[in-house]
Amino acid sequence: VIQVRLDELARRLGVELIGDGGKEIRGVQPLEKAAADDLSFFHNPRYAEQARNSRAGAVLLADPSLLPGRDVLVCEHPYLAFARALAIFHPAEPAPVGVHCSAVVAAGASLGDDVSIGPHVVIGPGSRVGSGTVIGAGSVLGDQVEVGEGCLIHPRVVIEDRCRVGDRCILHAGVVIGSDGYGFATVDGVHHKVPQVGRVVVEDDVELGANVCIDRGTLGDTRIGRGTKVDNLVQVAHNVQVGEGCLLVAQAGISGSTSLGHHVVMAGQAGVAGHLRVGDLAVITAKTAVFKDVSDGAMVSGNPARPQREWLTANAELRRLAGVRKRLAELERRVAELENDAPDAAEEER
Amino acid sequence: VIQVRLDELARRLGVELIGDGGKEIRGVQPLEKAAADDLSFFHNPRYAEQARNSRAGAVLLADPSLLPGRDVLVCEHPYLAFARALAIFHPAEPAPVGVHCSAVVAAGASLGDDVSIGPHVVIGPGSRVGSGTVIGAGSVLGDQVEVGEGCLIHPRVVIEDRCRVGDRCILHAGVVIGSDGYGFATVDGVHHKVPQVGRVVVEDDVELGANVCIDRGTLGDTRIGRGTKVDNLVQVAHNVQVGEGCLLVAQAGISGSTSLGHHVVMAGQAGVAGHLRVGDLAVITAKTAVFKDVSDGAMVSGNPARPQREWLTANAELRRLAGVRKRLAELERRVAELENDAPDAAEEER
Amino acid sequence: VIQVRLDELARRLGVELIGDGGKEIRGVQPLEKAAADDLSFFHNPRYAEQARNSRAGAVLLADPSLLPGRDVLVCEHPYLAFARALAIFHPAEPAPVGVHCSAVVAAGASLGDDVSIGPHVVIGPGSRVGSGTVIGAGSVLGDQVEVGEGCLIHPRVVIEDRCRVGDRCILHAGVVIGSDGYGFATVDGVHHKVPQVGRVVVEDDVELGANVCIDRGTLGDTRIGRGTKVDNLVQVAHNVQVGEGCLLVAQAGISGSTSLGHHVVMAGQAGVAGHLRVGDLAVITAKTAVFKDVSDGAMVSGNPARPQREWLTANAELRRLAGVRKRLAELERRVAELENDAPDAAEEER
Repeated sequence: VIQVRLDELARRLGVELIGDGGKEIRGVQPLEKAAADDLSFFHNPRYAEQARNSRAGAVLLADPSLLPGRDVLVCEHPYLAFARALAIFHPAEPAPVGVHCSAVVAAGASLGDDVSIGPHVVIGPGSRVGSGTVIGAGSVLGDQVEVGEGCLIHPRVVIEDRCRVGDRCILHAGVVIGSDGYGFATVDGVHHKVPQVGRVVVEDDVELGANVCIDRGTLGDTRIGRGTKVDNLVQVAHNVQVGEGCLLVAQAGISGSTSLGHHVVMAGQAGVAGHLRVGDLAVITAKTAVFKDVSDGAMVSGNPARPQREWLTANAELRRLAGVRKRLAELERRVAELENDAPDAAEEER
Repeated sequence: VIQVRLDELARRLGVELIGDGGKEIRGVQPLEKAAADDLSFFHNPRYAEQARNSRAGAVLLADPSLLPGRDVLVCEHPYLAFARALAIFHPAEPAPVGVHCSAVVAAGASLGDDVSIGPHVVIGPGSRVGSGTVIGAGSVLGDQVEVGEGCLIHPRVVIEDRCRVGDRCILHAGVVIGSDGYGFATVDGVHHKVPQVGRVVVEDDVELGANVCIDRGTLGDTRIGRGTKVDNLVQVAHNVQVGEGCLLVAQAGISGSTSLGHHVVMAGQAGVAGHLRVGDLAVITAKTAVFKDVSDGAMVSGNPARPQREWLTANAELRRLAGVRKRLAELERRVAELENDAPDAAEEER
Repeated sequence: VIQVRLDELARRLGVELIGDGGKEIRGVQPLEKAAADDLSFFHNPRYAEQARNSRAGAVLLADPSLLPGRDVLVCEHPYLAFARALAIFHPAEPAPVGVHCSAVVAAGASLGDDVSIGPHVVIGPGSRVGSGTVIGAGSVLGDQVEVGEGCLIHPRVVIEDRCRVGDRCILHAGVVIGSDGYGFATVDGVHHKVPQVGRVVVEDDVELGANVCIDRGTLGDTRIGRGTKVDNLVQVAHNVQVGEGCLLVAQAGISGSTSLGHHVVMAGQAGVAGHLRVGDLAVITAKTAVFKDVSDGAMVSGNPARPQREWLTANAELRRLAGVRKRLAELERRVAELENDAPDAAEEER
């Protein structure tokens, strides 16, 4: 069990300590589960009451006045500090440095210092793996693949020929990078394959979830921008350009040649059609189907996607629709009665 | 070809025979395809007519009066008996017991009796595999993984460090258990990884379809309850709790920290947002997007999800909407006419 | 760098040259990126203006009168010729013929001439691989699997026991063929597995995208028709029959026992429920959820799916709904006024 004094923890996290620096901390837990030797955290002031009731031995927070008399660690971004504390109390087991005897590394491949190449890994000729990178068991790198430094490639990842992965990327198990784009020239009902000869370029600090698929470009590159984080089972089609710092949540899909600006959020199971432009900082909510360009900063919902406010209004209107028909029928009855009674109507009948 | 006398078949299935026990049965088929030496079945009485026209040599059913004069096997649950008959006529080829010479099993791993460890399997230190379990070719078990007894792990499955799988589980090819949850602390547009140090716990008698992904918990466990069956390409996010006996159909997705009660059904391509509670026996129909808690036994549909009856009504109303606008326009015309003819209106005009 | 004279290129593509046959072409690019030694193409006359402004050294087109005075290659299907030109300038690296020493090929397996069996491949007893087929690293073929001639199986594909793949098929990384169908006999809340003893049959000239899953039939075959192209992360359930020349776009899903005619298009994230029939040449647009049969040539959209025109109308109506409610309220006010003023109403009040 790892045990760290609170003053030492404050120092390592770069935060301010108020309280008993000699207290020993042995783990990190959310407020409701924390014990007397656990560090916990909150940011939003509405959790202050819960924090006061928590048994946590110390609490990371932004405003110490919300928790008077307690041992606290003060910083601007308590959740980030909490994430760092997690890494302190749960250090990742370092992968064994070296090349496992069962790995098949082509003669022409180049491996950096301190790489860890797992069992049954295959690395093709001309490929390069940067220093400190871990390639998990059963992963396959094709020919002339480049993977940067400090990457963590989990087991059973496939990176096809000529694709590139930057530094400090994390690729989870089952990821496929560089499968062919879905392109066919159809003549008389026969779909002839259009060769897909471009690449995939995954920039630095990207994380790709389990079983994610990213197709190579037809002629140019499919690109995942720096710092973008992709959840499990996401599909990125050929020629797509994803900007920096985007969040693509599980089972989202992006069709061919579409571009996303920076810091776009696609929530779970959302989809974007091909050849579109999604603006910077746009948010596409869960299950949304985008068929038109989305402007910078817009939040869109529904199928077809429209501004979220409009979608919410339409849903509310839909619930009122049965009422509308009732009122309409009632009105028709009343108007018919008025018409029967009207003097003109009587005259016309004569 | 396997050949079983009908009386012997009745005995092995534990059902009642009415008819010729000496008849030889050589296979099982649905009613429309069954031949004179096939066993077939039906449960719903509306298939009785089809059963009477079937050439099946014998029929499993609940009510023998529906098929007079035929050789029948009578039991309360004919479909279950049919499933068991299928296993009799199509016995699974037993996997070869032992550890394939190409497998890489860490010194500290523990293997039960009669396990079958396929080619190119990797098993990390501290991992345990229960007796009678089959690990298919190319599967990777990380460090300190536990897999119970009598499991069937198909090829190319990944179970990451410290995750647990119970007894009698079936994991299809490409399953990933224990990928990192999708958690980031975002500061100034940079998404900092929140270490995911929890586990995945898959309880007994669970089946997971091909390329299913189940993320590990952030601090605690992601859990798949006993007897739950998961179809292909389903996503289960970190900290999710799935109860016992649930059915998660293909391409469904569950966001982080959501809990499902027991015997919940999520149909294909359905999704549930994070931090929600779906009650026992609830049914989420295909393609539905759930953004609020679902109560016990509820059936919900649509995006956003609402009670199915309400959704069906809304769809019906939507189809009538063009008619509503026509009626409204007609009414406006009639009211305008009435207003023109009204004495008061005339007076006001003077 | 590959360099081909324009007259030689015309000859190899089987198209008509108008212009300078001696010009050297060194690559293929879309109109906007093409340089003076690139071949480009267009088909739709609305790109003629862009073609005139392009720097392309030569252009494949159908109507040479749209590009007078330029070096052009004339043919009926310029996009198809472009695809063939792509293959000329970007020839696929031939895989090394032979069986890699780390592959595990069962004694009873049969390999055709000139196969390429990659590192860590596993091929079970009784399986057959046709001549000229490439099996990528880490792929697993079970027992009695048949793969035809001239196939390209990418790394980490799984083909389970007894399944069949035709000639000239392309299977991308992570494909799973022959996982069990999702079938259970539920009694008293316990889901008993129904053995899935059928096969998957993939006919000739099929392409399957990365991480696609195709379940085996319960008793008969799940079938993917000749020339059908399947994009990444698509799910095909047990007993499904997909006709010839279909296009199943990424993340689409087809439930059990449904059949698709020939040349059906399912766009991205579309789904079809079980036991349905989708007619020849039908189009199911992106994100659509089909719960009823679709007739030949129909185009359907929405959840639940309806004819696309109807869906578009319903969406337009929905946007007008707030206006309808306003008009209704106004009309109610006017009718109430008429009623107050009506002589009868006055009389009734006496």
